[in-house]
Amino acid sequence: MINFENDYTTGAHPNILKRLTETNLEPVSGYGNDKYCKSAKEKIKKIVGLKTAQVELLVGGTQTNAIVISTMLSDYEGVIAVDTGHISVHEAGAIEYTGHKVLNIKGVNGKLIASDLRKYLKDFLSDSTKSHMVYPGMVYISHPTEYGTLYSKKELKDIYGICKSYKIKLYIDGARLGYGLMSDASDMNIKELAKLCDVFYIGGTKVGAFCGEAVVYTNNNEPKNYITSVKKRGGLLAKGRLLGIQFDELFSNNLYFEISRYAINMAHKLKKVFKDKGYKFYIDSPTNQQFVIIDNEKLKKLSKKVSFSVWEKYDLKNTVVRFVTSWSTREDDIVALSKLL
Amino acid sequence: MINFENDYTTGAHPNILKRLTETNLEPVSGYGNDKYCKSAKEKIKKIVGLKTAQVELLVGGTQTNAIVISTMLSDYEGVIAVDTGHISVHEAGAIEYTGHKVLNIKGVNGKLIASDLRKYLKDFLSDSTKSHMVYPGMVYISHPTEYGTLYSKKELKDIYGICKSYKIKLYIDGARLGYGLMSDASDMNIKELAKLCDVFYIGGTKVGAFCGEAVVYTNNNEPKNYITSVKKRGGLLAKGRLLGIQFDELFSNNLYFEISRYAINMAHKLKKVFKDKGYKFYIDSPTNQQFVIIDNEKLKKLSKKVSFSVWEKYDLKNTVVRFVTSWSTREDDIVALSKLL
Amino acid sequence: MINFENDYTTGAHPNILKRLTETNLEPVSGYGNDKYCKSAKEKIKKIVGLKTAQVELLVGGTQTNAIVISTMLSDYEGVIAVDTGHISVHEAGAIEYTGHKVLNIKGVNGKLIASDLRKYLKDFLSDSTKSHMVYPGMVYISHPTEYGTLYSKKELKDIYGICKSYKIKLYIDGARLGYGLMSDASDMNIKELAKLCDVFYIGGTKVGAFCGEAVVYTNNNEPKNYITSVKKRGGLLAKGRLLGIQFDELFSNNLYFEISRYAINMAHKLKKVFKDKGYKFYIDSPTNQQFVIIDNEKLKKLSKKVSFSVWEKYDLKNTVVRFVTSWSTREDDIVALSKLL
Amino acid sequence: MINFENDYTTGAHPNILKRLTETNLEPVSGYGNDKYCKSAKEKIKKIVGLKTAQVELLVGGTQTNAIVISTMLSDYEGVIAVDTGHISVHEAGAIEYTGHKVLNIKGVNGKLIASDLRKYLKDFLSDSTKSHMVYPGMVYISHPTEYGTLYSKKELKDIYGICKSYKIKLYIDGARLGYGLMSDASDMNIKELAKLCDVFYIGGTKVGAFCGEAVVYTNNNEPKNYITSVKKRGGLLAKGRLLGIQFDELFSNNLYFEISRYAINMAHKLKKVFKDKGYKFYIDSPTNQQFVIIDNEKLKKLSKKVSFSVWEKYDLKNTVVRFVTSWSTREDDIVALSKLL
Repeated sequence: MINFENDYTTGAHPNILKRLTETNLEPVSGYGNDKYCKSAKEKIKKIVGLKTAQVELLVGGTQTNAIVISTMLSDYEGVIAVDTGHISVHEAGAIEYTGHKVLNIKGVNGKLIASDLRKYLKDFLSDSTKSHMVYPGMVYISHPTEYGTLYSKKELKDIYGICKSYKIKLYIDGARLGYGLMSDASDMNIKELAKLCDVFYIGGTKVGAFCGEAVVYTNNNEPKNYITSVKKRGGLLAKGRLLGIQFDELFSNNLYFEISRYAINMAHKLKKVFKDKGYKFYIDSPTNQQFVIIDNEKLKKLSKKVSFSVWEKYDLKNTVVRFVTSWSTREDDIVALSKLL
Repeated sequence: MINFENDYTTGAHPNILKRLTETNLEPVSGYGNDKYCKSAKEKIKKIVGLKTAQVELLVGGTQTNAIVISTMLSDYEGVIAVDTGHISVHEAGAIEYTGHKVLNIKGVNGKLIASDLRKYLKDFLSDSTKSHMVYPGMVYISHPTEYGTLYSKKELKDIYGICKSYKIKLYIDGARLGYGLMSDASDMNIKELAKLCDVFYIGGTKVGAFCGEAVVYTNNNEPKNYITSVKKRGGLLAKGRLLGIQFDELFSNNLYFEISRYAINMAHKLKKVFKDKGYKFYIDSPTNQQFVIIDNEKLKKLSKKVSFSVWEKYDLKNTVVRFVTSWSTREDDIVALSKLL
Repeated sequence: MINFENDYTTGAHPNILKRLTETNLEPVSGYGNDKYCKSAKEKIKKIVGLKTAQVELLVGGTQTNAIVISTMLSDYEGVIAVDTGHISVHEAGAIEYTGHKVLNIKGVNGKLIASDLRKYLKDFLSDSTKSHMVYPGMVYISHPTEYGTLYSKKELKDIYGICKSYKIKLYIDGARLGYGLMSDASDMNIKELAKLCDVFYIGGTKVGAFCGEAVVYTNNNEPKNYITSVKKRGGLLAKGRLLGIQFDELFSNNLYFEISRYAINMAHKLKKVFKDKGYKFYIDSPTNQQFVIIDNEKLKKLSKKVSFSVWEKYDLKNTVVRFVTSWSTREDDIVALSKLL
Repeated sequence: MINFENDYTTGAHPNILKRLTETNLEPVSGYGNDKYCKSAKEKIKKIVGLKTAQVELLVGGTQTNAIVISTMLSDYEGVIAVDTGHISVHEAGAIEYTGHKVLNIKGVNGKLIASDLRKYLKDFLSDSTKSHMVYPGMVYISHPTEYGTLYSKKELKDIYGICKSYKIKLYIDGARLGYGLMSDASDMNIKELAKLCDVFYIGGTKVGAFCGEAVVYTNNNEPKNYITSVKKRGGLLAKGRLLGIQFDELFSNNLYFEISRYAINMAHKLKKVFKDKGYKFYIDSPTNQQFVIIDNEKLKKLSKKVSFSVWEKYDLKNTVVRFVTSWSTREDDIVALSKLL
């Protein structure tokens, strides 16, 4: 079985496993008060290039979204997201579980369009019934988006500019951040991105770690008594070292970016295979997720030898299928897939 | 520095690390739909000896308590716990965050006394204002307790009997379950315990795993659409394999129980060291947590060479200190401690 | 100032005030355990014609929606509503505050279209990622809708049929139910409507009461220990008599329906005035809310002598304005308005 | 049947009913934006003597407690209350429903003792595990307490002083505030009390209104966008006039205080009746709630002709019974009770 199902099918990058093994017997304090967590946070602060940054390590993506959003919103506020955003659809109502509404704006190719955001906020403020409505207190975007697409620096600047002028926060879900930053289509590095939002997270789970997401508060704006709020939401790991060691390794020797670039390279090859065979793409994704339109008959056959995700019906005869690459994708897999097609 | 701070200061048991390494490159499905999770669950079902058991793997203890309790309680119900219970004190209000009250009964040495429970329930039912009060819908106990003490089989039977007669659920927090079961003072094995409650969890984090707790619903009573409720609370791990592989290993070759027994043996030696030197114990714990009364002056000196947890003030001159053993406690550490004392 | 702002600008219908005065000195038990509440509930049960009905009296509409929805949904479920539904927009996120998502389907003239509902449910069930999504557990509709429109009996039957076949609940928000039932356009009476849903409420606040909404569970399906769940949400009135007496009076001598019919008659006259003057309607509403398109210049002048609600911008030159009638609308007001136009 | 069951058995004070009737046909805006609400708030601001005060009108006591507490606490905080406090026992977990823990301190005669509060806060701050615990962010006291007892000015000053030195808020539940202020045992007026807390509420429901509680934020500290937070919790009344008119009347011509004083006078007479007959009191209450110890045999007989609340078992032979007076208690009732005893 060749596997392109997603970017979390295998374990951790070998360097991470090696590091976990080397440090295994060393006793350290729990709950993130260990030298590995500290070192990882320092490395991340350096890499994002902000002296005002504060970094926190959490276990998973939905947990991170729920914690970041619910601890930064005021009681009367909700969070804006596009209708295809992860928090809008695939988090089982985790944001609503914290008592806050997700306010939907229709996205384009998974992206929030700045002018739509501006219109939404303007309309809200001029609505005479707004005190009976949920105030928009934050904008949530994913980079890359759920469709593998990217914001340009100009687009992100526009969105952040609107947020600042309306005094609402901008939060970037970076579950696959590395793949965005290392894409040929990206015109931003992590330092530039960090300056264009209030908070973002650097996804570990989908970029080589067993688990873990690093939240970066860009401007000394981490909520007070953070640990208590994390504990209250069941997100505090006793052996915090598990997160610290992984992120310390990911941000040693450029590993995080090399893993990401490797997956992008594999995605290029994968894309070429499909293109050469005449397949059409549902969306033109420059990152590690590729959405291909496949004939239903072929799909059935293919699924016996290849793992992938069925995304949605395209039409009566065709289906949109997602293929994903990662650090563990092998060139052999792509060759094998090519032969099967 | 000799470390007796707690049972989660080191990484994972070497067998677990080895297993994670061996399986690392194998691609499997995410979110717990992998063969390791399935195998681990099957092994646990066999070990608890109940065909009606359902097993779920979660990441951490507070998360597990919040998920189990909030998905089993009805809207108008709360959960009974002793005042020193983990959910009453050290979970930062995680149960209340789910909208349910923790109803406190005063415990004795960390334990809930059956007759106190019966009185509480009887008084509640005869209270004419009870419709304005939180209904007791579940009893929460820890085994071992937060003070390292154990319920006898008779005591547990009594508590469960009361629960059944009042039609409320009994939930056992087994964060350190192995140390309870393998204690010389225990008169129950895991099969017997499993028959005396509605749901319990087998703690992994404190018994050799990097992270992970295995919830056992004893009687086909797992809440419907469990995965969705877990996701909603940010508890669903994308790389579910991390939990599956660890528990599969813990329940291969008796590892879970051997780890536990080893820590108990170390605790015996530790206890003997203190006893021989004339120290008094705050509580007579038969498990891997030992609560010793230490003179404040001595404490200060000791803390320079030994890690432990300061529990509480004993009197003006003395302090209660907790020493904990685990799979990674070395006999040398105990010898060294003995010399320091 | 002529007032068409809404149907809650004046106090209570004189009969209600009279009844409150007559009963004022009589001591009765609190929290709804009084003879007036009991009598009101009995009358309502009779009027809805269901022996299996259970009736509860609550204070306000948003409170009622939050209580009904959150106590009937399972943990993993959300509630479907059209995008213009009251719970979707104008309840400040009250449903999300209970931890449940409002799942939006685009409505037509404020109404949920049966075929859209069927498609939504079918798509959901066939979605391979559905365990990561909020399950639809209930359908919420308003009758009349927020745009004053009505469901036909056939339309309601279709929606309820779909709900039953998918085993999800149907809840009708009847904040203005009377105006729907007494509209010339209605082909249902309250007995017929009651058979076509699982739960609905009969709005009092907007139909002559100071406050109060009567929830009708149609099929012995009232959640257990209801009073406790209401108290937990701050919805239990100490002087429950205030609700009991009002509803007892509303359902004596057909008052509720007469009030409603009177407002419909006034709405007809109002509509005629606008039609005769050549105004266009934003939507063709057969109930007591009329949505008229008015030139912005004229609007400014009119607003100095008439109270109404500005609904939304129609185009650059015109605005949609809502005029509402009630038991306290006087024919003189309509004559005066006619002159002003 | 003579009624001493509680202070909310009858309707509204006749002056209030009269005022509701006089104003009934006047159309005003909804949701509290009417002249009566504004006037009531202004009167209350004047009476509490603070230019910095902000006043809000809500419907009921539990709702008020939940709204005030949950909108003023930070995410990681809980509220301290005595174990017999209303929010600790008789609000069905309404505070926990908002996600915040009620932190209990043992009270004495229903009162929080300043030195106990200081010890609690000191112990908390010196606890090395405090980041895993709920932070105390507010102190809740009732005045009068649930046992009818009162804080002296000195006691309140001490508690508020501690709160200020620990930077936590003090909230006074004044469900029966009038009876406290007009008691002979009170050494504070409302102006003095208002200076000794951050927020309190003036109870209307139990002091002559059909419903309604007036929250006073003493120092420009009303949470932002209050109306939205109230709406979100289902507490916003469409016909806000119902609250405005009642409070406007209560604070016209000293009515609120006269009602309270009248009930205190009746309580004195009631007390004398019991004393003269040799009955003992469970607690020495100087307010309108009297707790009498009655022989179980006598109790049974009495209950056929008198309404009261059974409070709790005193011993095997006797019961604690609560008798309450209000504006509608008649001297004849007390004479009749005297005869029965």
